Amino acid sequence: MRVLIVGAAGMIGRKLAGRLRASGTLRGEAIARLVLADAVEPADLVTDLSEPGVADELVAERPDVIFHLAAVVSGEAEADFEKGYRVNLDGMRSLLEAVRAAAYAPRLVFTSSIAVFGPPLPDMIGDDHALTPATSYGTQKAIAELLLDDYSRRGFVDGVGIRLPTICVRPGAPNRAASGFFSSIIREPLNGEEAVLPVPDTVRHWFASPRTAVEFLIHAAELGSAALDTRRCLTMPGLSATVADEIEALRRVGGDGAVGLIRREPDETIAQMVESWPGGFDARRARELGFRAEGSFDEIVQVYVEDELAA
Amino acid sequence: MRVLIVGAAGMIGRKLAGRLRASGTLRGEAIARLVLADAVEPADLVTDLSEPGVADELVAERPDVIFHLAAVVSGEAEADFEKGYRVNLDGMRSLLEAVRAAAYAPRLVFTSSIAVFGPPLPDMIGDDHALTPATSYGTQKAIAELLLDDYSRRGFVDGVGIRLPTICVRPGAPNRAASGFFSSIIREPLNGEEAVLPVPDTVRHWFASPRTAVEFLIHAAELGSAALDTRRCLTMPGLSATVADEIEALRRVGGDGAVGLIRREPDETIAQMVESWPGGFDARRARELGFRAEGSFDEIVQVYVEDELAA
Repeated sequence: MRVLIVGAAGMIGRKLAGRLRASGTLRGEAIARLVLADAVEPADLVTDLSEPGVADELVAERPDVIFHLAAVVSGEAEADFEKGYRVNLDGMRSLLEAVRAAAYAPRLVFTSSIAVFGPPLPDMIGDDHALTPATSYGTQKAIAELLLDDYSRRGFVDGVGIRLPTICVRPGAPNRAASGFFSSIIREPLNGEEAVLPVPDTVRHWFASPRTAVEFLIHAAELGSAALDTRRCLTMPGLSATVADEIEALRRVGGDGAVGLIRREPDETIAQMVESWPGGFDARRARELGFRAEGSFDEIVQVYVEDELAA
Repeated sequence: MRVLIVGAAGMIGRKLAGRLRASGTLRGEAIARLVLADAVEPADLVTDLSEPGVADELVAERPDVIFHLAAVVSGEAEADFEKGYRVNLDGMRSLLEAVRAAAYAPRLVFTSSIAVFGPPLPDMIGDDHALTPATSYGTQKAIAELLLDDYSRRGFVDGVGIRLPTICVRPGAPNRAASGFFSSIIREPLNGEEAVLPVPDTVRHWFASPRTAVEFLIHAAELGSAALDTRRCLTMPGLSATVADEIEALRRVGGDGAVGLIRREPDETIAQMVESWPGGFDARRARELGFRAEGSFDEIVQVYVEDELAA
């Protein structure tokens, strides 16, 4: 079993690599080789997928499973139009073309996003809801999904796309995602630092922990192809919660002192972008295929405490 | 008023050019310049949009309205994977990038297709139905729609995408579209020739005449931007009719002799592709915006008789 992770230097990529090293197996086979590629350190191979020839080099060893996690995040894709399309669209297409040229149809697990959905949205979004992205990032992910479906249908790749909920609580420094504050308002106070909250407490969003995201990826790699129909992209289950739910979960772990470190500083740009994102999903297809997420924000905070603070 | 037609050598392109030459105006302004570009003859400019630099040259004169009709049709896009993506996706992207670089946001009218919709489909498809293409052609058109929406949202272009019904009766020789027989079974018998019918009489499909398609394009060019929301792509109204409806309309014009020239020769590949296409649409948004189509197959046959046979 040869495994390639593209975007291995990111938070999820590093956790996935750690998880695969710890278990040593995937799809019931021992992992003989695990290649970690990313455009930035730390990675075994520091290489940019959107550069000519890079995808072919990465695929030359014919990895059995490819995890494609590399992406320019939402805020950056909106700020830098060209970079967003280059990384999020051209990168995906280069990888698919390299796999097609190699002609062996590996399992490709692609991380899409709930940002493929935009307003007007119902309170609960079903698996058949139209892709109506309201951002360039969401557009790029939606296009990547369409490509993954078509390349899979043609037999060039055995693709599974998973639309991740917003991953929370992200460890470490904030990234440039517009959704970063959802993590900051838990993480910073638990580390004794102030956090900025740019949106109202009533904002409802869709969450899963980093640990759960890694399990989604492993499960997507291990799913039998027969279980998938022509639609290879699935909305992952998650927890629908408000900022107020987050704050109460924080209070139960860190007390009023921690909650007091949240500074409200409304930001219209972020608020508008986040409000265009969906608040809850049915995710029936994914649940039927065995994907599982957290059931309360307390569990999500607990994962952060166990995996990051205790370590 | 400067107008550019990309894909001007195709059937619709030639009719559109003729219509614009005849009226001499668009959006209430006299047409000072009309450039007809295509990868094949006849065109003023024989040039391939998917080649580097071509789109920039075409946009250099800053046409006020651009009609982008150039496409590899469904059957060919399925048979030649690379060509389909090069022309239908890269061509569109090159044009959008050229327009973005020119920084003046012209009206871009793009012809999409009902092939962006695939099974499972309801009998009547609403304006909010998900894009679930079942072919590479449909995938390429769906991606082009997403790009048009995002580039319009960002203010780089003032786009309108129109999902054309199957155009029927197409004059002249058959093209490589899998849907070609819908026209052949009317056109060939009316010209005293045999036609092959590869699908059952019960197949239901969605039609408009070439004359109506040209009026859709003109109307899309003239629509005020304020009337459009963030979703710039519209399903055009059309006529929902079966092959049996077609045959009865043929009989009313050409008699039993014409109908006798239809030879049934089932083709599983074509039947499967066509059955994955939708049979009827609500098209409410487009109707509310003033787009109009035929009300019976007799009218569609009549347009063929008037515009092609009488000429």
